[in-house]
Amino acid sequence: MRALVFEGDLKYRTDYPAPAPLNDEALVRVTAAGVCATDLEIIKGYMGFKGVLGHEFVGVVEECGEMGLTGRRVVGEINIPCGTCRFCKYGLGNHCPGRGVLGILNKDGAFAEYLTLPFSNLHVLPDSVTDEEAVFVEPLAAAFEVMEQAELGPSDNVCVLGDGRLGILVAQALSLTKCRLVAAGRHRDKLSILYNRGINARIGIDGLGREFDLVVDCTGSPSGLADALKVVRPRGTVVLKTTVADRGAFDLNQAVIDEITVVGSRCGPFKPAIRALEERVIEVRPLVSKTFPIEDGVEAVRYAAQKGVLKVILKIGG
Amino acid sequence: MRALVFEGDLKYRTDYPAPAPLNDEALVRVTAAGVCATDLEIIKGYMGFKGVLGHEFVGVVEECGEMGLTGRRVVGEINIPCGTCRFCKYGLGNHCPGRGVLGILNKDGAFAEYLTLPFSNLHVLPDSVTDEEAVFVEPLAAAFEVMEQAELGPSDNVCVLGDGRLGILVAQALSLTKCRLVAAGRHRDKLSILYNRGINARIGIDGLGREFDLVVDCTGSPSGLADALKVVRPRGTVVLKTTVADRGAFDLNQAVIDEITVVGSRCGPFKPAIRALEERVIEVRPLVSKTFPIEDGVEAVRYAAQKGVLKVILKIGG
Repeated sequence: MRALVFEGDLKYRTDYPAPAPLNDEALVRVTAAGVCATDLEIIKGYMGFKGVLGHEFVGVVEECGEMGLTGRRVVGEINIPCGTCRFCKYGLGNHCPGRGVLGILNKDGAFAEYLTLPFSNLHVLPDSVTDEEAVFVEPLAAAFEVMEQAELGPSDNVCVLGDGRLGILVAQALSLTKCRLVAAGRHRDKLSILYNRGINARIGIDGLGREFDLVVDCTGSPSGLADALKVVRPRGTVVLKTTVADRGAFDLNQAVIDEITVVGSRCGPFKPAIRALEERVIEVRPLVSKTFPIEDGVEAVRYAAQKGVLKVILKIGG
Repeated sequence: MRALVFEGDLKYRTDYPAPAPLNDEALVRVTAAGVCATDLEIIKGYMGFKGVLGHEFVGVVEECGEMGLTGRRVVGEINIPCGTCRFCKYGLGNHCPGRGVLGILNKDGAFAEYLTLPFSNLHVLPDSVTDEEAVFVEPLAAAFEVMEQAELGPSDNVCVLGDGRLGILVAQALSLTKCRLVAAGRHRDKLSILYNRGINARIGIDGLGREFDLVVDCTGSPSGLADALKVVRPRGTVVLKTTVADRGAFDLNQAVIDEITVVGSRCGPFKPAIRALEERVIEVRPLVSKTFPIEDGVEAVRYAAQKGVLKVILKIGG
């Protein structure tokens, strides 16, 4: 099959073997997939992954032991837990130490004509959500994860740092709580996506005090945590989405004295993400910078790594 | 009055002016005070403080506008909030940006014959709690703060790192919840204080897995946070008591991926600390390494800085 494969360098191949579904798995024909910052990191060596890249996708189930899934349009959760360890037993399958992760860890990903996933990972899409929108379900779920971790209400002061793909999704997701929200970024054009949706957006954090109950670092930048600690109030919470090779200096002593809570945050719940797209309360279409056919996948990934680019989508099957 | 004063170096003085209480303050004749790691840090330059050191004390109220306090034996909370800012209004006086802190920030401390504190900071002691024990109320309150920040129950797996003064108090406080507790330290003699109270104590963390719901870093060491992150489970919590000038390397990316919560922790509630001493469910007497008269205060502080020493107490008034 056609696939975009990382084997030390990124290659477009037409002879990659199609995956065979295990008993509990569905075979999914991928129609579109999104390029994520994690894909770009993997190409730099992150996770030591080799194989088919990609974990944000939409596709059609071709074969599945589970009744009623064959022929349906689906998105899929990316963690494949072992199902038997104590993390899995306590409902923490996303943290199973033996898990595979689609296109990231021990499991070929979505930049290919076909992928396999356990059918329990799949979510059927409403017809009104387009393929292009559906590619955003996985990162939007990661945005909703913030609301699973921090209770938020209309009287909370919240700041989202970063105006990249994830920052724009997180700001939109948090705005649904009607909290008092400020989104701070560095790019007028990206922030305008938020501004046009009635969200208070600004360049940088200069002039902001230590005033926020919750700060979410979506900068993907080494200085993100230090900036977050500058604007979070004593006893406030910083949710950390950023993973970076080298993190800049930050004052953890001040965080102890001010009794700040710092929470790491990763994958999130798919159902609210799908519902938000279906109800059109979150707008993802302005985030699509460019669409490439999978044949041009190497160029697409190179394009996605450029400054100013938001989401790049690969079109794979018809 | 007699006082132990830090003015670039530490001096015992007999001519230091006695403090005059403000309208809302009590004048307290100090009977005993404890030397804390923070005092040792201040002498190295921490906080830039100049004046009378000391913030762990017990004394007798000599003058007070508040009915019923004069003549009573008291301990006192060390943060002196402004009372009018929005932190104070929301009950976060301990985090008031304009606060003074006894013997630490803009307020002369307890290594002296007299101190002043707002009477709302004072707690009357039960007769059964000795002066020597009462000196531990402030650090024991900081230990109870962990239980204010992390909900704990009998089925939780908890690890306390560090067998210094604070580690021993935190381990004893957490053991009251009947959680499954492991205390890990580096000194057989210090750990034996915990072992003798039925607490599972061990040397180091070798052989421990990523198995703890809650880990409390009381090491006071640059490597404490890294060690805590090695034994906390995914989605678990690390409470950070350690403030150090240079923190060692730790993998915050792993903390993001594993969605760890890191919580800074400082001063805590006095009432449960006093009650625990009154009910004799926490044992502090084995922590007293040596008692000095205030006249020998410079030597006492030097002694407190030595390896293996737990708590040094200054006797001040009769």
